[in-house]
Amino acid sequence: MQYQAEVIIELKAGMLDPEGTTVKRALEHLGYETDSVRTAKKFTIVLQAADIHSARENVEEMCEKLIANPIIHNYSISLREIE
Amino acid sequence: MQYQAEVIIELKAGMLDPEGTTVKRALEHLGYETDSVRTAKKFTIVLQAADIHSARENVEEMCEKLIANPIIHNYSISLREIE
Repeated sequence: MQYQAEVIIELKAGMLDPEGTTVKRALEHLGYETDSVRTAKKFTIVLQAADIHSARENVEEMCEKLIANPIIHNYSISLREIE
Repeated sequence: MQYQAEVIIELKAGMLDPEGTTVKRALEHLGYETDSVRTAKKFTIVLQAADIHSARENVEEMCEKLIANPIIHNYSISLREIE
């Protein structure tokens, strides 16, 4: 079966987000006031797996080993079958 | 009212995604086969607005003017009231 995983990699609470701060400031210069801007990364991964549980297990391992840095990031995975 | 907007900035279909290609290749080296990896950016923006319609209008303008590049990006906005 083919699955699509949407993985969101966010900075943990309390981690500085200089890119978000820069965007917030740039928006202010354009006249848009915001209370906060936080950035995150999204990965859309299409993969083959026997079932949705093994797909999730695979994607979790990918996050732990490569995509996320567990010291500074939280990640969330949402999965759906596409075939 | 305070609103939280989740903005996803994705490359348009057909645009090359070198970061996604690199992650796909790195996953292969670690033993994880995938069919595709695409990257995107997520911004979480907290802002004040009179109602949800003006919040959406504001965030759309932020995307058009600063956050997204309409030549290469699609964006989607999901909004919810948080106060």
